[in-house]
Amino acid sequence: MLGLMQSQQLLISSLIEFADRHHHEGEVVSRRVEGDIHRCTYRDIAQRSRQVAHALDQMDLGFGDRVATLAWNGYRHLELYFGVSGSGRVLHTLNPRLHPDQIVWIANHAEDQVLCFDMSFLPIVKAVHSRCTTIKHFIALCDADKLPADSGIPGLQSYEAWIASHGSTYYWPEFDENSASSMCYTSGTTGNPKAALYSHRSTILHAWAGALPDALNMSARDSVLPVVPMFHVNAWGLPYAAAMTGAKMVFPGPAMDGKSIFELIESEKVTFAAGVPTVWQMMLGHMQQADLRFSTLKRTVIGGSACPPAMITAFNDVYGVEVLHAWGMTEMSPLGTVCTLKNKHVPMGSQEKMTVRLKQGRALYGVDMKIVDDVGAELPWDGKAYGDLLVKGPWVISEYYKGEGDSPLVDGWFPTGDVATIDADGYMQITDRSKDVIKSGGEWISSIDVENIAMAHPAVAMAACIGMKHPKWDERPIVVVVKKPGADVSREGLLAFYEGRTAKWQIPDDVIFVDAIPLGGTGKMQKTKLREALQDYKLPGL
Amino acid sequence: MLGLMQSQQLLISSLIEFADRHHHEGEVVSRRVEGDIHRCTYRDIAQRSRQVAHALDQMDLGFGDRVATLAWNGYRHLELYFGVSGSGRVLHTLNPRLHPDQIVWIANHAEDQVLCFDMSFLPIVKAVHSRCTTIKHFIALCDADKLPADSGIPGLQSYEAWIASHGSTYYWPEFDENSASSMCYTSGTTGNPKAALYSHRSTILHAWAGALPDALNMSARDSVLPVVPMFHVNAWGLPYAAAMTGAKMVFPGPAMDGKSIFELIESEKVTFAAGVPTVWQMMLGHMQQADLRFSTLKRTVIGGSACPPAMITAFNDVYGVEVLHAWGMTEMSPLGTVCTLKNKHVPMGSQEKMTVRLKQGRALYGVDMKIVDDVGAELPWDGKAYGDLLVKGPWVISEYYKGEGDSPLVDGWFPTGDVATIDADGYMQITDRSKDVIKSGGEWISSIDVENIAMAHPAVAMAACIGMKHPKWDERPIVVVVKKPGADVSREGLLAFYEGRTAKWQIPDDVIFVDAIPLGGTGKMQKTKLREALQDYKLPGL
Repeated sequence: MLGLMQSQQLLISSLIEFADRHHHEGEVVSRRVEGDIHRCTYRDIAQRSRQVAHALDQMDLGFGDRVATLAWNGYRHLELYFGVSGSGRVLHTLNPRLHPDQIVWIANHAEDQVLCFDMSFLPIVKAVHSRCTTIKHFIALCDADKLPADSGIPGLQSYEAWIASHGSTYYWPEFDENSASSMCYTSGTTGNPKAALYSHRSTILHAWAGALPDALNMSARDSVLPVVPMFHVNAWGLPYAAAMTGAKMVFPGPAMDGKSIFELIESEKVTFAAGVPTVWQMMLGHMQQADLRFSTLKRTVIGGSACPPAMITAFNDVYGVEVLHAWGMTEMSPLGTVCTLKNKHVPMGSQEKMTVRLKQGRALYGVDMKIVDDVGAELPWDGKAYGDLLVKGPWVISEYYKGEGDSPLVDGWFPTGDVATIDADGYMQITDRSKDVIKSGGEWISSIDVENIAMAHPAVAMAACIGMKHPKWDERPIVVVVKKPGADVSREGLLAFYEGRTAKWQIPDDVIFVDAIPLGGTGKMQKTKLREALQDYKLPGL
Repeated sequence: MLGLMQSQQLLISSLIEFADRHHHEGEVVSRRVEGDIHRCTYRDIAQRSRQVAHALDQMDLGFGDRVATLAWNGYRHLELYFGVSGSGRVLHTLNPRLHPDQIVWIANHAEDQVLCFDMSFLPIVKAVHSRCTTIKHFIALCDADKLPADSGIPGLQSYEAWIASHGSTYYWPEFDENSASSMCYTSGTTGNPKAALYSHRSTILHAWAGALPDALNMSARDSVLPVVPMFHVNAWGLPYAAAMTGAKMVFPGPAMDGKSIFELIESEKVTFAAGVPTVWQMMLGHMQQADLRFSTLKRTVIGGSACPPAMITAFNDVYGVEVLHAWGMTEMSPLGTVCTLKNKHVPMGSQEKMTVRLKQGRALYGVDMKIVDDVGAELPWDGKAYGDLLVKGPWVISEYYKGEGDSPLVDGWFPTGDVATIDADGYMQITDRSKDVIKSGGEWISSIDVENIAMAHPAVAMAACIGMKHPKWDERPIVVVVKKPGADVSREGLLAFYEGRTAKWQIPDDVIFVDAIPLGGTGKMQKTKLREALQDYKLPGL
């Protein structure tokens, strides 16, 4: 027997229509590529996203056709989020930090038909457009009078001219909520990039889960700054959750330096900001130097990589800002866990709470997770046993785009490639990436643990631990280190620093000092490149 | 093109499985019919709800068969919520406050197969069982040794004996998320009762929306007391939202007096409570008398009927508890609006905020609403224009159970039977029920406004305004009043009290003093009965 409830497909267009109707005066503030601050409302975004939909219709794009963006976080990008997906096309956010050859490969693989780009990325588009064979339309996200005259890009139009001729009334199409809405390629350290193809349903369920008090905790009283880029996993779904809740949106544009971010937080009364540790490191540096304090910021969610404990302490103790660890993946839309406390932790002291806060957190309802051993048997949740982390849920991929039915799932579970523990209260902690864990004498050594100890040394700016072949132990760890400017530490000094901080057999066999560690398109250390660079390296004593 | 996300049906069984896996230690505390306090965890609830599922399977109940309850808020009722719906049957919560004849009619109409009842309701079950022709199994929610020997109810079993023989491992069936999960009959003041038939999908989407910061704001740090009954619209969905978020649950059982409720709030460190104004009135009375203060309660949601401003002030100003107005209906699962503030209200003074808080609130994402005039044309959102309120969304009914395709919808919108205004910020305020509004000389008079003025008089305990036929004006209002014990006011005194508090033509033509105003099964005033009692009444001067 079926229930007798209204059947209403969960579509992204309903988010912006809701924001227009119930939060029309809600603010959307953007620092633009032009350098100025732009202010508008959800009503403006709604009207202009409908104009985008009309403009796409006029281009004769079919249902499900891909519309790509190369853009910073800003109001025009937000309009594309709703206009492209809402009208039945697939928003493909390209990552401008990738190498132009990768961008070409990805755009061709996705068969993008349109590319909308910020003027910052004109040089990239100039370099790649002739090789992007499926793109028929190039749109520069600028006013008509800012369009470069001699770009060499065929048929280049300005975004404002493109949408200007269209009305702001539009009847969003209704279709199956399982239809594709957007896509994002993983930065894949090996092989070709692969894309997660999100659906309207997965996006809306993820927005509901993400807005909950135990996740990002978003309300109409919030002013939200997504420092996480809209070109990567939809800025953790914040644009959708904000429209769902009527939260004010504040976009940083290209200005990601500490001073600009801090000023935006203060001027726009930001209550909640989300970003990766590197951006916060710059901001805290700026604040310390200028002796600044926040006046409205209440909490920040940190994801992308583990947050150094010192940063959590600085935010919490010095600035009174709650720091939440979050963990997810491109393949998970991305939210999997957020580290919020439970009832039982409330009476604890700050030191005890810190031991909880250092973990990646608890699963949101909708995501289930498990850890398994080498043969796939589930491991206990005791905070000690560690194994491969697998997840499932309605916003986790079933296969990659053009995967041709080749499912990455194992018995319905997606293998994350992370190694983790889960404690009795359900708090998960990543101990390593599966491919980075060092297998030494039948035991596993976490490369992250080795790196964290090095990072705790006052002279170390960045550290990468990798495993080196060893005839007896199979693998042994070494640590590659970048020193802080003006600071110094010797190989022996750093190895001595490990004494008492970890088991003897987990202390790395060697330290290698370098000027820089290669970073990938999303700011993660590229250990593959390090391993290549060190292919002729020999462990001491071999 | 479809997205490539995992297809996972949204099923109620997943809520309790999530709570078991991720919040197994979460507490469920119940004041029992037996009088004592019972404590268990989500793991216990999960295990016992699986035992319920086994027990139902053994009864050879088919998919979608109805299992009825006549029960207070408590852990066994919660187990039935998950065990019945999770195993594919439909949970039918009967309202024990209805007349036995109505219960018989409803149980037969629903074709209930099983009835599970609290021992408080043994007299009702004795009175009705022989007329409930479809019920094959009667289960008393008690221990085996508490089962009455000579109840006269055929095959009566105790709940504990019924589930004891079954294991706590169970593989919940997977099925279409649009399948029926539970049902609730409206207290319908005219005609036969009609049932809303909820689905798994509608229940889960409603739980997500209900747990949001701008709705009930539920997290794993909350201790939640649903004073609203689980036998009426699933206690506003709180049992589902609590399992979704891992919040501690505190159930009051049959003890709804002010003292018992207050003591439970204090002993179980309740942070959030939900109820109707009458229960809070009793509790505040008790607290004033005994000069008590809350130590943990942070917020309360009040729905069912409009909350008197004096109560909001008492909670806010005297006890430091945030009061949220909520509005919904049985046909809406029930949440439609909650009155939480927006960013723009935060800097306002408490008086200004109060004018917002008195409204029923803003729509949650998922619910859309509109007000229309007599010919169905949409009215402006200016806070002044009022008209019939219509709603739509995935947790609003499409038709009633056994409605045989006869849809109550108007162009896809459900007519709520309420008359309301909506202001420019989207805040809705009920001005009256459509059938209670008084049409006088072509203008509408809100019966609620007339009642609120009477209620503001220190000698008035309860007031009901109804329209009386008038040859010239069509209808004129009169007010039926119950005086407070020991207080007095005259007809002329009360009419004089209206002077300056409303427009002259809106002042009632008469005051009728009565000992009591009839209340329905959910505590609402039954104006139909008042009208019947006053059928020979003549307006003064006629």
